[in-house]
Amino acid sequence: MSNSSLRVGIAGLGRLGKRHAEQLARHTPGAVLSAACSPVPAELEWARTELGVRRCHADYADLLADPEIDAVVLVTPTTLHADQASAALRAGKHVFVEKPLSLDVATCEAVEAVAREHPDRVAMVGFVRRFDPSYARAKAAIDAGQLGRPFLVRSQTCDQNDPEGFFVRFAPSSGGIFMDCSVHDIDLARWMLGNPKALRAFASGTIALHPGLADCGDVDNGLAIVEFEGGQRAVFYASRTMPHGHETTTEVIGSAGTVQIGHGAHADRTEFRTAAGVQHAALPDFFARFADAFRIEMEAFVAACRGEIAPPLTLSDATEATRIGQAITASLRSGQPVEIKS
Amino acid sequence: MSNSSLRVGIAGLGRLGKRHAEQLARHTPGAVLSAACSPVPAELEWARTELGVRRCHADYADLLADPEIDAVVLVTPTTLHADQASAALRAGKHVFVEKPLSLDVATCEAVEAVAREHPDRVAMVGFVRRFDPSYARAKAAIDAGQLGRPFLVRSQTCDQNDPEGFFVRFAPSSGGIFMDCSVHDIDLARWMLGNPKALRAFASGTIALHPGLADCGDVDNGLAIVEFEGGQRAVFYASRTMPHGHETTTEVIGSAGTVQIGHGAHADRTEFRTAAGVQHAALPDFFARFADAFRIEMEAFVAACRGEIAPPLTLSDATEATRIGQAITASLRSGQPVEIKS
Amino acid sequence: MSNSSLRVGIAGLGRLGKRHAEQLARHTPGAVLSAACSPVPAELEWARTELGVRRCHADYADLLADPEIDAVVLVTPTTLHADQASAALRAGKHVFVEKPLSLDVATCEAVEAVAREHPDRVAMVGFVRRFDPSYARAKAAIDAGQLGRPFLVRSQTCDQNDPEGFFVRFAPSSGGIFMDCSVHDIDLARWMLGNPKALRAFASGTIALHPGLADCGDVDNGLAIVEFEGGQRAVFYASRTMPHGHETTTEVIGSAGTVQIGHGAHADRTEFRTAAGVQHAALPDFFARFADAFRIEMEAFVAACRGEIAPPLTLSDATEATRIGQAITASLRSGQPVEIKS
Amino acid sequence: MSNSSLRVGIAGLGRLGKRHAEQLARHTPGAVLSAACSPVPAELEWARTELGVRRCHADYADLLADPEIDAVVLVTPTTLHADQASAALRAGKHVFVEKPLSLDVATCEAVEAVAREHPDRVAMVGFVRRFDPSYARAKAAIDAGQLGRPFLVRSQTCDQNDPEGFFVRFAPSSGGIFMDCSVHDIDLARWMLGNPKALRAFASGTIALHPGLADCGDVDNGLAIVEFEGGQRAVFYASRTMPHGHETTTEVIGSAGTVQIGHGAHADRTEFRTAAGVQHAALPDFFARFADAFRIEMEAFVAACRGEIAPPLTLSDATEATRIGQAITASLRSGQPVEIKS
Ligand SMILES: NC(=O)c1ccc[n+]([C@@H]2O[C@H](COP(=O)([O-])OP(=O)(O)OC[C@H]3O[C@@H](n4cnc5c(N)ncnc54)[C@H](O)[C@@H]3O)[C@@H](O)[C@H]2O)c1
Ligand SMILES: NC(=O)c1ccc[n+]([C@@H]2O[C@H](COP(=O)([O-])OP(=O)(O)OC[C@H]3O[C@@H](n4cnc5c(N)ncnc54)[C@H](O)[C@@H]3O)[C@@H](O)[C@H]2O)c1
Ligand SMILES: NC(=O)c1ccc[n+]([C@@H]2O[C@H](COP(=O)([O-])OP(=O)(O)OC[C@H]3O[C@@H](n4cnc5c(N)ncnc54)[C@H](O)[C@@H]3O)[C@@H](O)[C@H]2O)c1
Ligand SMILES: NC(=O)c1ccc[n+]([C@@H]2O[C@H](COP(=O)([O-])OP(=O)(O)OC[C@H]3O[C@@H](n4cnc5c(N)ncnc54)[C@H](O)[C@@H]3O)[C@@H](O)[C@H]2O)c1
Repeated sequence: MSNSSLRVGIAGLGRLGKRHAEQLARHTPGAVLSAACSPVPAELEWARTELGVRRCHADYADLLADPEIDAVVLVTPTTLHADQASAALRAGKHVFVEKPLSLDVATCEAVEAVAREHPDRVAMVGFVRRFDPSYARAKAAIDAGQLGRPFLVRSQTCDQNDPEGFFVRFAPSSGGIFMDCSVHDIDLARWMLGNPKALRAFASGTIALHPGLADCGDVDNGLAIVEFEGGQRAVFYASRTMPHGHETTTEVIGSAGTVQIGHGAHADRTEFRTAAGVQHAALPDFFARFADAFRIEMEAFVAACRGEIAPPLTLSDATEATRIGQAITASLRSGQPVEIKS
Repeated sequence: MSNSSLRVGIAGLGRLGKRHAEQLARHTPGAVLSAACSPVPAELEWARTELGVRRCHADYADLLADPEIDAVVLVTPTTLHADQASAALRAGKHVFVEKPLSLDVATCEAVEAVAREHPDRVAMVGFVRRFDPSYARAKAAIDAGQLGRPFLVRSQTCDQNDPEGFFVRFAPSSGGIFMDCSVHDIDLARWMLGNPKALRAFASGTIALHPGLADCGDVDNGLAIVEFEGGQRAVFYASRTMPHGHETTTEVIGSAGTVQIGHGAHADRTEFRTAAGVQHAALPDFFARFADAFRIEMEAFVAACRGEIAPPLTLSDATEATRIGQAITASLRSGQPVEIKS
Repeated sequence: MSNSSLRVGIAGLGRLGKRHAEQLARHTPGAVLSAACSPVPAELEWARTELGVRRCHADYADLLADPEIDAVVLVTPTTLHADQASAALRAGKHVFVEKPLSLDVATCEAVEAVAREHPDRVAMVGFVRRFDPSYARAKAAIDAGQLGRPFLVRSQTCDQNDPEGFFVRFAPSSGGIFMDCSVHDIDLARWMLGNPKALRAFASGTIALHPGLADCGDVDNGLAIVEFEGGQRAVFYASRTMPHGHETTTEVIGSAGTVQIGHGAHADRTEFRTAAGVQHAALPDFFARFADAFRIEMEAFVAACRGEIAPPLTLSDATEATRIGQAITASLRSGQPVEIKS
Repeated sequence: MSNSSLRVGIAGLGRLGKRHAEQLARHTPGAVLSAACSPVPAELEWARTELGVRRCHADYADLLADPEIDAVVLVTPTTLHADQASAALRAGKHVFVEKPLSLDVATCEAVEAVAREHPDRVAMVGFVRRFDPSYARAKAAIDAGQLGRPFLVRSQTCDQNDPEGFFVRFAPSSGGIFMDCSVHDIDLARWMLGNPKALRAFASGTIALHPGLADCGDVDNGLAIVEFEGGQRAVFYASRTMPHGHETTTEVIGSAGTVQIGHGAHADRTEFRTAAGVQHAALPDFFARFADAFRIEMEAFVAACRGEIAPPLTLSDATEATRIGQAITASLRSGQPVEIKS
């Protein structure tokens, strides 16, 4: 590796953090995973032995103080994102922060303000689907005018049911199903529709399998309609209870064409024929669906930090997604449409 | 044909009426198309020469007075359905009436009351999708418990764009996109979910291509969420502006499985590979999609009239679909959720 | 029905004969099923009571002598086809004969000779797939030049395994798997490729599940390559042992495009998602696959007899298919390529 | 990277060699791309500047003499494979050699003999499809008995037409379409069927678009049937003239189930709907189809060299594929079935 490699420090080595760390250590040209940070000693030990990471910090402040780090990748619990991102920028580091930036719009805006003070630092949010080759092809077709004027997005994030209900325990801090899952769909809708201003949201939901969610006002299946200016619309569906696997799909409907992304949820290119009919396996989870996208996302972040490309998305994208997600969540709770003010 | 054939008189020989007439004349075992009724002489002439219908009436009263008719099939404009259906029952005829029974719930209930006075007469509404083999297989799977508890229906009725905008002229009397298109989806949702009570509706829409619709408060793309008791939900999408053809789909999501019906919209079993990629034609319209279902529907009506099967659906199904459709339409206009009272 | 209806007599009321009889009696405009012929009294009784056929003959000679019959539809055992078809023509009747016309080329040619003596009588062979809407669309695309020059056909006829092995008992008289199943594929290849002259055939096969076939030199899975003049080629696959259902497919490969017909074998438009993955039912048998085609085929025969259309295929098509089928069968037995002389 | 990383030297930096080099330099854990070898200075320059390869050799002998190399990856022209592989083994290096090992069976066997003298060195052939996740899933299903007894493989390798006809110039040394393309299908058939002994081959072909192939007895579309002992069969199709892209598919048919791999050739997960119908892009070439497999293949080679896994395939697999491929090619030329002796 050349001296000009971007030296990355990762914070958070949980379910997703481990994946990002592996990408950075093994598969991201132009980057070296120089440091890792976690309060959990076993996680640091894993980074050291599995990935050969030399600089391991139990304390996030130490990571930021580390002079051998150019950029920070934040895969920590959602509640820490905003403060850690701001601190990273203030420490002079580029920062990649997992979605959602914050569950609170004002907090998002505060991070944006910090970023404005550090215009030479890249600050990017982990809306990974934008980096998926299929989403990228759809977006390119839209930009090339192949769909005419896009006016409607239908998008879903549906996870396979986890009978153990892990996410029930996670629910109190997740921000609810719309902030946790649909935030991707919201971001995509804005992206595909050309960043229109959102005006209003309505949501409805149900608990199909996980009664424990009721305590925190959450549901395991949620529907939402968002109205944008200029008549554009989006409808979202989020589910935790799919029987077959992970099926994340998006459809963009334009005046001259539509594009569907992800329908069918094929795990791979096999199809079986037996006495039970014709069958194929579905994708087990979003890691399987977006493995390439996670890799390309890190490559894009590294390339942006190295000045090779413009940052493909900004903190403001995160703020707007949170703004809409919060309105949807408020509508779910109140049962009434919620105005979105910006 | 045996003497016991059901003697059917058809009223209305427009776009759909002609199809029903052909089915009855040529392809419906146990029935003879004995009479036709239309105010348009050319339509009657068509019935006489093409289908060999002997008894042609310009006036609906004459059709009902015809003693050689056992059953009436109504494919007249929507505004006539309710009165004509009631009159048919009072004249001692079985009656099949195209959807919607009426745009007004009270009017639907009035026809129901008449039907109760004639318990030996069959009164059936044209929710044709229930007779489509794919919908029937899905329903059978649900009834067999293969999906666990069904809790969500997602259903769409999407027509290919008609650049001439015929339906714009039709809009003032159609009842709007939800009454005209989604009424099928509404009926299916009730059927698939086990006839739950509808509690509330919210709708939103947009005009993508046909500004003329604004005058009558209609849209060419509409979205609606319906909340049923017990936490069941439905979300509907109706469009007049599909670029590729007719794509009517329904998905039923249960606690243990889901079923999708109609996705892909293949016109047939061909798939082409050229420099433009892999391509297949889409269905042009609902006639192409539901040709079999229209035939089976008429067979079912005839069989019910002949006492061979129980009527597969009742006027009450029509009333409930109108009730929900009206609430959705009211929500579209008010922008607020609308309570559904029954 | 008008006096000008074609009066049809059917001979053979077995598995396929019953279907043709139902079509003719109930669903074929312009035809009346006036008579039926079978040596089996119960079959005639079925025609009388189920279809209202008045004129029932135990003896084929009586059917031909019946002056109230304009056309004969032969669905009798293969060994009877040629003689019965010739006799029908000599009796002044139009004739539809199920495939194969004969297992013997000379016999086919003899029937052709008889037909030439009766140029005003229609003589048509039951290559039903030509009437399937998907095959028709493919052929139309080829004729319109959309595939460039078609040079290769890959075609299969694959039946669901019948554990009872009915066809094993049928094998001694079926002519073998290639004459019984692939004869359709052979006809399609000729049709799609523009009736090129066949030069040579090579075949190979195996017995996967039904050892009883060995006695008559037959296999339950067979492969064949046919070389046509001008470099055109075809490859066929026939199987009796599919686990999932009936999957009949054809692919035509041209210099500028290809078309696939029938891949996927969807029984209908439903797709299920459960813990077992994504699944759809396959077509159970060729009746389910070609129900429409059998109807359209009879309509075409009736229309040809009534002079409304030119006969869509000729006895010579049957002769050529038999010629190729016999060469393939001879190659299967000898293990060597077989020249095809015409 | 730890000291125990496998130090790899690559020979050949052409179309495929560049890909392997990138994988090894950037994405293969446990390996370092230490050296490169090519007679073309510009190719070495690319390896130096793009991949940071320090040790660049114009002469293959120098690569083998390099003490800092543990393993050699051969992506050189086919005619060099055998000698270079033997030399690598004799120099004490592990060797990965691209397919085909040789166009000549005796030469393959000679390399096998050398390998036997170096039992502690890994010698592996680049049958990349075995490492594709879909092929791997299919194989696992077969090994788990889900298909019953597999008895038939149908497999194709079909490239998009290259109007420039690059491969025509390549034809004289490629060994012909069956050695160049079908060798993968042959290897897969053996793998999926459990390595049965091949008995006989028959082939036929045609030139659809590239008359220049006639000079070297080659075709641009070829069909072949291979007979294995125990009644197992395979049928292959290879084409250079696909209009839409690369479509490599394989079907394994067993007594209780079948599996299809790769049908549909979707480039990604998008599907467009426009006035032209429903369309998706096809894969452009085998690099797009097998990008993951090429990566996994190199990982497997590296893991085998490091003793972490048993070599997933052996030189003998290459010998048998050549044996069958040669018989097919001989049959194409003679027009007669060719016995396969081992
Ligand atoms: N983009 C996506 O599709 C996607 C998918 C999954 C998760 N996420 C987001 O990623 C984030 C992490 O999710 P997860 O599922 O990996 O969670 P997790 O709970 O598995 O991991 C959190 C990690 O953060 C570490 N951590 C806690 N406090 C820390 C601190 N002060 N400093 C450094 N590390 C600390 C924990 O030890 C743990 O390793 C969440 O915000 C989530 O929303 C995004
Ligand atoms: N089930 C479905 O999927 C479906 C599809 C299309 C239409 N429809 C319904 O069918 C009905 C007819 O639709 P259409 O598109 O065929 O309309 P249309 O306008 O083409 O035809 C209406 C027909 O009614 C005749 N008519 C008018 N007044 C009459 C009277 N007093 N007595 C007898 N006939 C009279 C007209 O002459 C015409 O033949 C509508 O209610 C529509 O909602 C249902
Ligand atoms: N086109 C297709 O796809 C297709 C499909 C199935 C069968 N076929 C062909 O149809 C023919 C019949 O097949 P099947 O499966 O119905 O056979 P089957 O054995 O079920 O029926 C044969 C019928 O012929 C009757 N029959 C026997 N001798 C007769 C005679 N002398 N006169 C009148 N009737 C006589 C029998 O009673 C029986 O009703 C075969 O030639 C077969 O190849 C074609
Ligand atoms: N596994 C697959 O799917 C697959 C796909 C493509 C190619 N291949 C195989 O890979 C091999 C290379 O194919 P290609 O398309 O990359 O060919 P290519 O002609 O593009 O590349 C050949 C390379 O070998 C180099 N070379 C020539 N002589 C050499 C020598 N003496 N020492 C070292 N390098 C030398 C050339 O400079 C060039 O870089 C062929 O054997 C081909 O069959 C396999």
